Amino acid sequence: MSNVAVRQIDRADARSIAGLAQQGVATVHEAQGRTGLLKPYIRPIYPGACVAGSAITVLAHPGDNWMLHVALELCQAGDLLVVGLSSDNSDGMFGDLLATSARARGVQGLIIDAGVRDVGDLTKMGFPVWSKAISAQGTVKASPGSVNVPVVCAGCLVNPGDVVVADDDGVCIVPRDTAGEVLSKSIARTEKEQSVRQRLAAGELGLDVYGMRDRLAAAGFEYIDKD
Amino acid sequence: MSNVAVRQIDRADARSIAGLAQQGVATVHEAQGRTGLLKPYIRPIYPGACVAGSAITVLAHPGDNWMLHVALELCQAGDLLVVGLSSDNSDGMFGDLLATSARARGVQGLIIDAGVRDVGDLTKMGFPVWSKAISAQGTVKASPGSVNVPVVCAGCLVNPGDVVVADDDGVCIVPRDTAGEVLSKSIARTEKEQSVRQRLAAGELGLDVYGMRDRLAAAGFEYIDKD
Amino acid sequence: MSNVAVRQIDRADARSIAGLAQQGVATVHEAQGRTGLLKPYIRPIYPGACVAGSAITVLAHPGDNWMLHVALELCQAGDLLVVGLSSDNSDGMFGDLLATSARARGVQGLIIDAGVRDVGDLTKMGFPVWSKAISAQGTVKASPGSVNVPVVCAGCLVNPGDVVVADDDGVCIVPRDTAGEVLSKSIARTEKEQSVRQRLAAGELGLDVYGMRDRLAAAGFEYIDKD
Amino acid sequence: MSNVAVRQIDRADARSIAGLAQQGVATVHEAQGRTGLLKPYIRPIYPGACVAGSAITVLAHPGDNWMLHVALELCQAGDLLVVGLSSDNSDGMFGDLLATSARARGVQGLIIDAGVRDVGDLTKMGFPVWSKAISAQGTVKASPGSVNVPVVCAGCLVNPGDVVVADDDGVCIVPRDTAGEVLSKSIARTEKEQSVRQRLAAGELGLDVYGMRDRLAAAGFEYIDKD
Amino acid sequence: MSNVAVRQIDRADARSIAGLAQQGVATVHEAQGRTGLLKPYIRPIYPGACVAGSAITVLAHPGDNWMLHVALELCQAGDLLVVGLSSDNSDGMFGDLLATSARARGVQGLIIDAGVRDVGDLTKMGFPVWSKAISAQGTVKASPGSVNVPVVCAGCLVNPGDVVVADDDGVCIVPRDTAGEVLSKSIARTEKEQSVRQRLAAGELGLDVYGMRDRLAAAGFEYIDKD
Amino acid sequence: MSNVAVRQIDRADARSIAGLAQQGVATVHEAQGRTGLLKPYIRPIYPGACVAGSAITVLAHPGDNWMLHVALELCQAGDLLVVGLSSDNSDGMFGDLLATSARARGVQGLIIDAGVRDVGDLTKMGFPVWSKAISAQGTVKASPGSVNVPVVCAGCLVNPGDVVVADDDGVCIVPRDTAGEVLSKSIARTEKEQSVRQRLAAGELGLDVYGMRDRLAAAGFEYIDKD
Repeated sequence: MSNVAVRQIDRADARSIAGLAQQGVATVHEAQGRTGLLKPYIRPIYPGACVAGSAITVLAHPGDNWMLHVALELCQAGDLLVVGLSSDNSDGMFGDLLATSARARGVQGLIIDAGVRDVGDLTKMGFPVWSKAISAQGTVKASPGSVNVPVVCAGCLVNPGDVVVADDDGVCIVPRDTAGEVLSKSIARTEKEQSVRQRLAAGELGLDVYGMRDRLAAAGFEYIDKD
Repeated sequence: MSNVAVRQIDRADARSIAGLAQQGVATVHEAQGRTGLLKPYIRPIYPGACVAGSAITVLAHPGDNWMLHVALELCQAGDLLVVGLSSDNSDGMFGDLLATSARARGVQGLIIDAGVRDVGDLTKMGFPVWSKAISAQGTVKASPGSVNVPVVCAGCLVNPGDVVVADDDGVCIVPRDTAGEVLSKSIARTEKEQSVRQRLAAGELGLDVYGMRDRLAAAGFEYIDKD
Repeated sequence: MSNVAVRQIDRADARSIAGLAQQGVATVHEAQGRTGLLKPYIRPIYPGACVAGSAITVLAHPGDNWMLHVALELCQAGDLLVVGLSSDNSDGMFGDLLATSARARGVQGLIIDAGVRDVGDLTKMGFPVWSKAISAQGTVKASPGSVNVPVVCAGCLVNPGDVVVADDDGVCIVPRDTAGEVLSKSIARTEKEQSVRQRLAAGELGLDVYGMRDRLAAAGFEYIDKD
Repeated sequence: MSNVAVRQIDRADARSIAGLAQQGVATVHEAQGRTGLLKPYIRPIYPGACVAGSAITVLAHPGDNWMLHVALELCQAGDLLVVGLSSDNSDGMFGDLLATSARARGVQGLIIDAGVRDVGDLTKMGFPVWSKAISAQGTVKASPGSVNVPVVCAGCLVNPGDVVVADDDGVCIVPRDTAGEVLSKSIARTEKEQSVRQRLAAGELGLDVYGMRDRLAAAGFEYIDKD
Repeated sequence: MSNVAVRQIDRADARSIAGLAQQGVATVHEAQGRTGLLKPYIRPIYPGACVAGSAITVLAHPGDNWMLHVALELCQAGDLLVVGLSSDNSDGMFGDLLATSARARGVQGLIIDAGVRDVGDLTKMGFPVWSKAISAQGTVKASPGSVNVPVVCAGCLVNPGDVVVADDDGVCIVPRDTAGEVLSKSIARTEKEQSVRQRLAAGELGLDVYGMRDRLAAAGFEYIDKD
Repeated sequence: MSNVAVRQIDRADARSIAGLAQQGVATVHEAQGRTGLLKPYIRPIYPGACVAGSAITVLAHPGDNWMLHVALELCQAGDLLVVGLSSDNSDGMFGDLLATSARARGVQGLIIDAGVRDVGDLTKMGFPVWSKAISAQGTVKASPGSVNVPVVCAGCLVNPGDVVVADDDGVCIVPRDTAGEVLSKSIARTEKEQSVRQRLAAGELGLDVYGMRDRLAAAGFEYIDKD
């Protein structure tokens, strides 16, 4: 593969992105048909962050963070960096200096299928990162990868400009051209869940709210009494 | 195996359960002869929770949370749900809707050998979960399992009605009919540890408090001086 | 291997140790040529601790914490216990009683390639631990290991008296006789980074600050426009 | 838990055991309702072995193989040793000497949720082992466990006298008192599969053999043509 | 996501496919710029198989092999099944019956990011499988996925009709429209390697064959003599 | 750390090395006090190889095999390459070309805490490798490491010139200056085991051969009869 950076990407409309951030990962994932989740080994470095933004994608090599510098130049305010690796690695490819640079350019956060370091500083800065590991292991700048090409990150295909939603539950990718539709479905789902929530809070059972009893019986499921 | 829910379970007496919650996992585990621990990959979703309750057991299939709905109907106030899986899976089988329902029925918390989602909401609700993973991955309701049968959860056999103790150290299972005895032994252990703690805090060494020096020598252990 | 405890160890000078604690793991690791890190599965039990001290090394066997008692007698105020295992194990070899004893003797914290328990109590005490696991699993005192011999802990060789630096990023080992030199290099690095940080914060790019553009081109890296 | 060896166990009838060995793990597992499998990290040390026998169960501690010696005395010809651990460990608890002893007593093989060594010799002897790891790491004989008590081995409850079936697919446990019934169901399943196999070999599709097309459509599944 | 099967796929030309099979995974992977490898946890169930074919892609859910039946109808002679999962799972989704059906339709083999069973039979049949696990765990046919849509399998994007190359080193994916070009580059690489191999076999060093000495010196690498 | 290759190493005497190869890993490991084993995730690429040789040590970086070329020049006939990594990685750093070169220089085999490729060819050549993974992932030659410095490989410290023993059970490291002594102890152990083996083969129990019955009783171990 040639090593390239694609200068321009298309982004979803800002209102859809902002809306998706409010819906959160679990709802968005369900709304788009249970697709788009990164594997759960990707975890936030501190709890409570909830963001959505356009993906600037990076393909990097193990132990080499060169492409992150290239990617930062191509970011706009509100974007999120998404870093996939050519093979498994947990080195600390991003720390407080890169976060300082990212913040200066309006980048909202980082999703990385590798390690991150200076997590104490990043937490103080309020710069959210979802990563595979926390590791101080330093990296080199020797092997070019690519920026703004399709990458697989933590088991999920990410195209540049896709909407990334990330919160305490993990990270979900929404294909750019479906962002508006997924937001609508997410809102509908949230509204529907609200009424279910009230019934459940009042003590009704999911068995009745969702009408499961007949299906259970049809599946041969039986209730028995303890002898 | 036929798919069944057993309607009634026997529970340990409430005073033993409450007492075990105060003793904590490490003490209870030691008091019952170093048995009953779930594997340490089961972790709380937030720190500081400490609970004990009777186990309503669930055998579920990967990617399928149908049985959790069945189980909730069979819970009493103070119970804990314990979910074992028929094969390894980390999908988010439980979220804020099920937690709302569980809370409405007085369920104290969840132990699950799989994933959980909406952890931000669960943390705000103060609904404690000990799980293998945090994952937003949605599940289906297609394959019946069983409720209130013996299950293996995270490497430990759990019978319905066993007392589950869970805190920051993990989860320990106390067989129902030994709850009182294990509580007594736990209290005795705690009292004994209190005097040891005072001696250690005063600077005495475990080598002397526990009389280890002779045993070390008998085992051929030697102290040497650096040349 | 015979089972021994070496009574005396040499330590680095106190000023170097104190200085390294201020520099933190990522900087120290870089300053000594990207060496000395423990594998990133070693994590702190609570965030925010940052310590440096001389290593009292322990070689222990799975499920056996006997040697930790031996080691405590050989500790001085400010030391850190570093425990390597003869084979992989996650049992809870250290808890609040040992922490009480360690604190009484001025030990600053524990690094252990195994499990720890009573983490709620340890957090309240402010006794920091970096461990592989949190597990209440109890241990025996049956098989002698050694104290103050070279050990491999989480993939890193540690000699007694080496300086251990530990913070939210993990743990780094500085060979005792290089502590002063590594501190000097760390301070130089921190100062240099400070000016870089200001330039990055002002919006300059790492591509320019580090002069990467020519090297990228030389490596055949290309920028392309989206068609 | 007190440390005991139970001298006598009940066994299933020899004809059922022999029959189950012929059916193999996958068939037996299906025939008993998709239960009883050990986790798939348990693998044979060499391919081609296929055995069934009564379980002599062992609860051992990490790094300690004392109980295997106790268990051998309680074995009869045709039995299989099943070893569960009190916590995760991969040490080589069994090697050619124990295999020599086991063979002399008619033991057919070993299932162990830990490590095994001398695998070159065991392969030459034709003594089959299903284990979690191959490791030469030596063990001690210091901490008593138990023999012929219920154990959890690789995520599955095993009672003494249960029938263990093991082949290249892994290991399946059949509760002792259901052995005859499970054998009957296994034979029925094998016979039914034979006719299905012939239809599939002749080019018929599972979609038709199993009548899946209507269910697919009912589930909303669609066939589409590439544009 | 809607659940669909796409009936037709485009395939690379047969000569390119046959040629890639002869080149093997390592060469093809290098020839296309070190891309396209599945993660190394995907392993063959027996050594020595070496195949290439067009990918019929399957997206399946954990514990559910329904889509494999759908996929078989869409296979042509020479195709390879490639199965990605919606979340991690190791259940035995494929066994001797499906292999019998696959063979009857000319399918060459299976790549699956989950488990496989009946491996003894599959080995006897000479039906090669590259999988994440060997597990007898049975599956259901309850949740529709998709066939012949893009899937991520073991960390790699696979489009229907891509050329799959698999041997003892693992599995490599060649995008369909580059198959001819990658074959040419593979052949060129193989020829070039042949002359290098002869020089190395004659005792020349890679340091000289590849002219590395100057670059080592330029990188500050030093040779030192032992004092 | 500066990047260096040390040109000369001291080796153990050839007779000790040859003798250790005959003793095998498990015996040698026991004879030197249960030390020196690499972690069991290091596995041979094919069964049956059994070698011993002097370690030429390599410290390499993830995804970079440059140092292996440097190391080959420093090998003598009979040596073994031992490769440690600066952080976890499974890329295929060694394949048939390097094996051709290694064989031409008399190198006996490779121990690598990373991946290897061309395993089909290596098996045909009879060039044994013990590795962490099999992966075709290609590597670069960009970051210098070191050769013939102490390295940690798979959890074990290896000094250049140490004797490496490797067989189907794994890999054991014998410090160079103890090779003769460890060989003597290994031979003594083997002889002693031979008489034990005969007694066990004749049906005696380890309980009696090793005189364990009194120790079991002293440890509170009880035999009970099934009621």
